[in-house]
Amino acid sequence: MQRQNFELLILGTSSAAPTTKRNPSAQLLNVAERFFLIDCGEATQIQLRRYKTKFQKIDHIFISHLHGDHFLGLPGFLASMHLLGRKQEINIYCPKELKEIIDKINSVSETRMSYEIKWHFTKNDKLNLLFEDDKTEVYSFPMKHRIFCTGFLFKEKPLLRKIDKFKLDKNKVSIADINNLRKGEDVINAEGKKIKNKDVTIDPEEARSFAYCSDTIYDENLVKYIKEVDLLYHESTFLNDKAKRAEETFHSTAQQAAKIAKAGKVKQLILGHYSARYVDLTPFIDEATPHFKNVMLATEGKKFKI
Amino acid sequence: MQRQNFELLILGTSSAAPTTKRNPSAQLLNVAERFFLIDCGEATQIQLRRYKTKFQKIDHIFISHLHGDHFLGLPGFLASMHLLGRKQEINIYCPKELKEIIDKINSVSETRMSYEIKWHFTKNDKLNLLFEDDKTEVYSFPMKHRIFCTGFLFKEKPLLRKIDKFKLDKNKVSIADINNLRKGEDVINAEGKKIKNKDVTIDPEEARSFAYCSDTIYDENLVKYIKEVDLLYHESTFLNDKAKRAEETFHSTAQQAAKIAKAGKVKQLILGHYSARYVDLTPFIDEATPHFKNVMLATEGKKFKI
Repeated sequence: MQRQNFELLILGTSSAAPTTKRNPSAQLLNVAERFFLIDCGEATQIQLRRYKTKFQKIDHIFISHLHGDHFLGLPGFLASMHLLGRKQEINIYCPKELKEIIDKINSVSETRMSYEIKWHFTKNDKLNLLFEDDKTEVYSFPMKHRIFCTGFLFKEKPLLRKIDKFKLDKNKVSIADINNLRKGEDVINAEGKKIKNKDVTIDPEEARSFAYCSDTIYDENLVKYIKEVDLLYHESTFLNDKAKRAEETFHSTAQQAAKIAKAGKVKQLILGHYSARYVDLTPFIDEATPHFKNVMLATEGKKFKI
Repeated sequence: MQRQNFELLILGTSSAAPTTKRNPSAQLLNVAERFFLIDCGEATQIQLRRYKTKFQKIDHIFISHLHGDHFLGLPGFLASMHLLGRKQEINIYCPKELKEIIDKINSVSETRMSYEIKWHFTKNDKLNLLFEDDKTEVYSFPMKHRIFCTGFLFKEKPLLRKIDKFKLDKNKVSIADINNLRKGEDVINAEGKKIKNKDVTIDPEEARSFAYCSDTIYDENLVKYIKEVDLLYHESTFLNDKAKRAEETFHSTAQQAAKIAKAGKVKQLILGHYSARYVDLTPFIDEATPHFKNVMLATEGKKFKI
């Protein structure tokens, strides 16, 4: 059986002003066909079309903070879903002032949306559960930036145990008990015989996780939130020769991102949110690799599959 | 001597939701190196970069109305000019609620712009002068759309008369009097002799004009505002088989745009603001031409020079 999807699509990698090559921040995470849009810089809806994503399947949008390059694509995206006749409600997890902006824009354009927006306002005090269903959990956690900002942590729920088909005669066990076995319980079969879980099941694959950190100053407090994730996206607006500028603007360098990844013992690091001054991105890899080996560059349209 | 520029660059031609091929409404008009940005749909700043325009030379922005596809690129464009360190003030001519939106966005992002915005709120009662300098005049005029909306009229000022160098001995006339002659006056030369204007000057080229009509229902009241312009942009969201839909949504068809152009005796008509349902745009030309011959399609990146 093929494993359920856990796939990240990069929609934008520029910091602040977009360029003709780089769009502002946005990523689309698919966890078992739940589509999570993370940040929504200007023209994100065009990027979503360009990469042929399932536009209307996005039910959850997460906005880290209210600098324009992280949310100015949202009003247009919401309007387009309305114009396309969306009925399904959409959940937006964000700083509370975003609702005021969207309400204002809809009010002046005299738009009454075809669907409901459910607002969930983020706090940046600690790890907070934002969303959960049978397969996924999403948390926010505090980040240090110039204005209120949170990161997001996406986790698969622990997977059910696998039945070892060579060791269990399925005909002798009810479907309900197969589910109980998969949950880790022992069961009694039709013949009244106890079946021990450990005799007939094997460990499932480990649940996967992704953490999103944009924008943030170098901050070791992040480590506890992103600990051992499979995939960490950490902004790297600058290279280390601009470390002072990074600190002043509450951003990070590639080296600092790598240090956080290492301290967090994550499996893989993705860099992004590059300042427009950098045309060639190779130095980001060169700078990060000595500190953390498994590092890759986010670029528009790139997919990361776990 | 080469004539001063009068050139329109199309930045976006989609109505409502953008597609991967078409951006929402925006145009850049250059009149004698005054750069006028007209509407500013999402991702206009990316289009401005794509077509290598002089980004920071735009001092005047005109917003017709507050449907998202006509202004949602403005917050990001203003932010980018700030990030690039602009000092020169910028003038925005628009419905008054736009200021509230921009103020709100700057407030939540804690941005204090590096330059001043001078707001000029449009009225839609009659032809109103919005801007004038020594070479140009810009007016707004009322349009009928679902919400408050204006068109814009850009006019070169009447040009000065030309000195006929074969008929005037410049050595016998002061520079001040040459300017008076160019303004159409008679003068007295150094020898006390009257020089009649009609003997030594010839007519200048006619002043050029451009009218922008987006978005509007078919409305013959427009004719008086766009009368005899050199270039008319008139929206054509639909083809005539969707005339009912056009009327319901306060938009126009290609045929209706052509009828307005004909009634206004304009020299050239440009169509645009196409519904995403139309992939091939040839039928827009086919439908308009029987009613008005000199018609062209707006497409992204196209330049119209008068």
